[in-house]
Amino acid sequence: MAKKLKIGLIGAGRIGRLHAQNLAHHVPGVELCAVADVIEEAAVELSQKLGIPRATTDYHELLKDPDIDAVLICTSTDTHAEIIKAAAAAGKHIFCEKPLALDLAEIDAALSAVNEAGLILQVGFQRRFDPNFRRLKELLAGGAIGQPWLLKITSYDPAPPPISYIRVSGGIFLDMTIHDFDMARYLIGEVKEVYATGSVLVDPEIGKAEDIDTAVVTLRFVSGALGVITNCRKATFGHDQRIEVLGEKGALFAENPLPHTAVLADEGGYRSAPLHYFFVERYRDAYIAEMAAFVEAVREGKTPPVAGIDGKFPVVIGYAAKRSLEERRPVRLTEVDPTLDI
Amino acid sequence: MAKKLKIGLIGAGRIGRLHAQNLAHHVPGVELCAVADVIEEAAVELSQKLGIPRATTDYHELLKDPDIDAVLICTSTDTHAEIIKAAAAAGKHIFCEKPLALDLAEIDAALSAVNEAGLILQVGFQRRFDPNFRRLKELLAGGAIGQPWLLKITSYDPAPPPISYIRVSGGIFLDMTIHDFDMARYLIGEVKEVYATGSVLVDPEIGKAEDIDTAVVTLRFVSGALGVITNCRKATFGHDQRIEVLGEKGALFAENPLPHTAVLADEGGYRSAPLHYFFVERYRDAYIAEMAAFVEAVREGKTPPVAGIDGKFPVVIGYAAKRSLEERRPVRLTEVDPTLDI
Amino acid sequence: MAKKLKIGLIGAGRIGRLHAQNLAHHVPGVELCAVADVIEEAAVELSQKLGIPRATTDYHELLKDPDIDAVLICTSTDTHAEIIKAAAAAGKHIFCEKPLALDLAEIDAALSAVNEAGLILQVGFQRRFDPNFRRLKELLAGGAIGQPWLLKITSYDPAPPPISYIRVSGGIFLDMTIHDFDMARYLIGEVKEVYATGSVLVDPEIGKAEDIDTAVVTLRFVSGALGVITNCRKATFGHDQRIEVLGEKGALFAENPLPHTAVLADEGGYRSAPLHYFFVERYRDAYIAEMAAFVEAVREGKTPPVAGIDGKFPVVIGYAAKRSLEERRPVRLTEVDPTLDI
Amino acid sequence: MAKKLKIGLIGAGRIGRLHAQNLAHHVPGVELCAVADVIEEAAVELSQKLGIPRATTDYHELLKDPDIDAVLICTSTDTHAEIIKAAAAAGKHIFCEKPLALDLAEIDAALSAVNEAGLILQVGFQRRFDPNFRRLKELLAGGAIGQPWLLKITSYDPAPPPISYIRVSGGIFLDMTIHDFDMARYLIGEVKEVYATGSVLVDPEIGKAEDIDTAVVTLRFVSGALGVITNCRKATFGHDQRIEVLGEKGALFAENPLPHTAVLADEGGYRSAPLHYFFVERYRDAYIAEMAAFVEAVREGKTPPVAGIDGKFPVVIGYAAKRSLEERRPVRLTEVDPTLDI
Repeated sequence: MAKKLKIGLIGAGRIGRLHAQNLAHHVPGVELCAVADVIEEAAVELSQKLGIPRATTDYHELLKDPDIDAVLICTSTDTHAEIIKAAAAAGKHIFCEKPLALDLAEIDAALSAVNEAGLILQVGFQRRFDPNFRRLKELLAGGAIGQPWLLKITSYDPAPPPISYIRVSGGIFLDMTIHDFDMARYLIGEVKEVYATGSVLVDPEIGKAEDIDTAVVTLRFVSGALGVITNCRKATFGHDQRIEVLGEKGALFAENPLPHTAVLADEGGYRSAPLHYFFVERYRDAYIAEMAAFVEAVREGKTPPVAGIDGKFPVVIGYAAKRSLEERRPVRLTEVDPTLDI
Repeated sequence: MAKKLKIGLIGAGRIGRLHAQNLAHHVPGVELCAVADVIEEAAVELSQKLGIPRATTDYHELLKDPDIDAVLICTSTDTHAEIIKAAAAAGKHIFCEKPLALDLAEIDAALSAVNEAGLILQVGFQRRFDPNFRRLKELLAGGAIGQPWLLKITSYDPAPPPISYIRVSGGIFLDMTIHDFDMARYLIGEVKEVYATGSVLVDPEIGKAEDIDTAVVTLRFVSGALGVITNCRKATFGHDQRIEVLGEKGALFAENPLPHTAVLADEGGYRSAPLHYFFVERYRDAYIAEMAAFVEAVREGKTPPVAGIDGKFPVVIGYAAKRSLEERRPVRLTEVDPTLDI
Repeated sequence: MAKKLKIGLIGAGRIGRLHAQNLAHHVPGVELCAVADVIEEAAVELSQKLGIPRATTDYHELLKDPDIDAVLICTSTDTHAEIIKAAAAAGKHIFCEKPLALDLAEIDAALSAVNEAGLILQVGFQRRFDPNFRRLKELLAGGAIGQPWLLKITSYDPAPPPISYIRVSGGIFLDMTIHDFDMARYLIGEVKEVYATGSVLVDPEIGKAEDIDTAVVTLRFVSGALGVITNCRKATFGHDQRIEVLGEKGALFAENPLPHTAVLADEGGYRSAPLHYFFVERYRDAYIAEMAAFVEAVREGKTPPVAGIDGKFPVVIGYAAKRSLEERRPVRLTEVDPTLDI
Repeated sequence: MAKKLKIGLIGAGRIGRLHAQNLAHHVPGVELCAVADVIEEAAVELSQKLGIPRATTDYHELLKDPDIDAVLICTSTDTHAEIIKAAAAAGKHIFCEKPLALDLAEIDAALSAVNEAGLILQVGFQRRFDPNFRRLKELLAGGAIGQPWLLKITSYDPAPPPISYIRVSGGIFLDMTIHDFDMARYLIGEVKEVYATGSVLVDPEIGKAEDIDTAVVTLRFVSGALGVITNCRKATFGHDQRIEVLGEKGALFAENPLPHTAVLADEGGYRSAPLHYFFVERYRDAYIAEMAAFVEAVREGKTPPVAGIDGKFPVVIGYAAKRSLEERRPVRLTEVDPTLDI
């Protein structure tokens, strides 16, 4: 049996703990050696729970440890770029949560550092690993509907985050739609132009925080295909995440998986369950598959399924959407980043 | 254009009126010439509504009319056999509602009369014409699942009929399950043996009327295939009528058609419509197709899709089920009618 | 029983024949007295088939007939406005197929003529009468999801019309999307602004005819709600017509009705039927309900469910979409028609 | 934090390994201390894989270990009763795979031993823990459909086991239907009488092994409710496991969960995935919940959700079904075991 891959976790918040548990229980051939968090208590608690040998408040300790092969960066967004560069300098392979950064220059610098060091960087767009979307992608790539013409992504959250979070989130397009931008690229290819419109309908406080809560984003792909993403910060029936692709030979649909299949029929009709409420449940299997894919990429030295550059494009699309909303016109990606080769 | 087929209606009750309207509006090449009903008012009212030239209380008048090619017998069950014989003697083709009769000797006599006269007799098992069941049958006959192994028929009424009706109905097996027995033969072939069990669960008055309201009937087909029919006199969510067939290469399902496809999602989940409540709505298209098929059979002189003998078998199966329930043992059809060639 | 409403049909093409048959067979209390078509053969054939007493090539004959209460205008679009004005002058109530006209001034003139004469004008947006969409509307109007936030209409045709038709159609927005614009208004209310984007993906000949075949149209309603319509001229699996509305308390969906409910399961999975292919089948019940509603409106002297003004708005939205596509920017309806009161 | 519950595993075959992995990864507060298997290699391999400190070929070693609180019995059926008695004598709580034994006297003796020792015995009917069936049960118990009238269980395996297995399986009723008998009791209550019929349709070799491969079993419950179980050893579309309950106020359905929700629409219609093929995937979450429930029962000293007596009843029903099939008549459970208190 191969030597275990040794991993250090940086950031023991909600998503860091989730990845740690998945690595501990569901991904064979891995050893979680250390956990770092600026909040000591968080690091210690997780290390005890999962039997991780070392807990620290200073992530540099992990980077100095020659035994550690790779790190997971699950800290707040504003620290991602710096940690990526430090990890690259230390020769560690990297899994980093999305978004890589909110500043494109920082993203470019981080990607350069990783590329120059010849390391692997996987970005945390876990939806690509959802078995439903993955199957749709396989069918699409296998030619089941021929050339894709029209992509429709529905992506509603069950309830808005706290206003305090919304204020620092970068706005709905960089916080929420960014997942859909990644999905659009994953399924159809590069986006050329974006038109975004939105409203404040869920909560006027979101408007006061200078954000919107309901959005329709139209995409024009380089191929000529069209796409539309609908977002809302609130859906009482749960985390609604669906995809449709119409193409020359037919269409593909990925419907919401249900928490259970029980149905009640009575005088009022047939009633089935509301959707999974939390993304953790909705994407349970996706998060496991994401970690397994990262471990495999590092072990086998191959390009990860969500590479570093895949962490940049959705941010560019997000900024284009933002500008489109402000300027009430379609915006080309090259207006945001003239260096893009699309 | 071909000469119109001239039809007389005998019995202007609910089902007679339904057929008359379908002939008037949905079946081309037909002329309803006369209507007979022992209740004069019923005959007159229908004739006025649909512009039928003649209304009478004596069905013999219709049989004497040389212009009339065919009659629909929609009277009460106890009169069917006699009218069939009279119609056969008069040389009229016949559509007769189910059941042909509750007495097997009467059925045999009626069938003989029709056969000797060389006339067409179609029996009113409209479910064979339901587009959903019909499509299932086509797929089955086309070999989509290979050899059928196991048939499951779900057949629930929305609410029990009046107790007064139940008393004269011949019992659940001859009144309600008879449709399912016909469907079983239509789909799989001849039945060899029946085991029936039942309970009074919906309404104790049904028990006092010496009937049951909930039944499970197991069928063994001549081919070795098995079948099971579940019946209940009440289902709050509507007229539930489904079929499944498992076979060597797969399975076929015919689900309930819905009155509309609107769905409401909220905190409680997803809710769709209850089923069609009345059989008239549930089998709207089936009743039209049934009349069209009768007209086509008469016009083209071909065997109707539900021939006279198809009116006898379900009654035999019904009596076998009845005896099985009483004697608490499986009963072969040949115990009920030793002359059967199965 | 009330006196029969006497109706004359102007235009015996596909849609005219459809309405005539529905009136003849499915709408009680109506008499089709005359049919006019510039092609004499078409008028005569239909009159014979349905037993309509008079056939003519000159629709003015119908308008002169004092016995006729109402006319159906089912001619080509370019003749609608003129016939409406003539019918209004003759005091006939009017059902007119969509679109009323492609010229807004002509529409205004026609509507004025009808209003001044105090007549009823119903416009042929039959989808409002589809039982699925109608149920969705009832639930929405009943407050089932509270305030609507986001409307999504999917509307694909099974196959594009001939290029010769596309050339004179007024373009996809005035020919195809116009139905969706009407549906949007029916469900949510007045539209304020439109952004349209499109591609030629189905057939390059459509591009040569200066039209597009695939479109995404974003709507901003006066209420602040958003909408998105996706259109395509081709969908191999049939006439795909679905609606979703997300609102504060939940969501409503109207799915496609299926031609039959039979499902085949085998090693490859579960397979159900493709959708209805032709709009005539897809909207069979809607067309009947539409005629019944017109007859009821005329009989009872009440505002029809799709009034004259409802024939103008979708044309305005269509022109706004057209300009948006050309000028690559969102366009307000008041830019197209400054007199609009929205 | 509470002291960890120490568990020993007896039997490291397929199901034993499955439970061990679930305990290791998904059930907190548990420690797998030892594994016993008569095949040394199996015990050692599993112990290494999961880091279990001890591996042995003699299960008595586990029973002697005072640190071990509970054992899982996952050996072949013929050894269950003996190991249960030994474990009871050693004061260990017990989880035992189904069936407890094929001999009723042995089952009684084993249950007595456990009862006298005051220990907990949970039987391995994992389907009770399936989230879909569990939700159905909750709704039923909560009165959603009032009094249950008619239970329908569909239970098809994707493919028959090897003939060698069938020969020692005890027959389809004790091997396969036993799960459905347990489910019937779980949902509706005690069964009074059984009528079973069956055929050899899948494979004539199964007939030569004196078993059947397709069965319809009718149940009469003590309450008067009826039930029907349909079984087949083969279903090309996967492991088909569905439940329906009709009751006075409505009906409950638990449909098959799908491996993924992707659907392909094309000219042939809509296609979704085949079902999970292996029971391990179909009941993945059920197996985890089953172990968690056992651990909770032991920790809290409460009656387990599938108690020892629940291991006996399905065997009695299985023998009644067997006799019914042989004697072609309904058989009461008290004919099989006159001591039953039902």
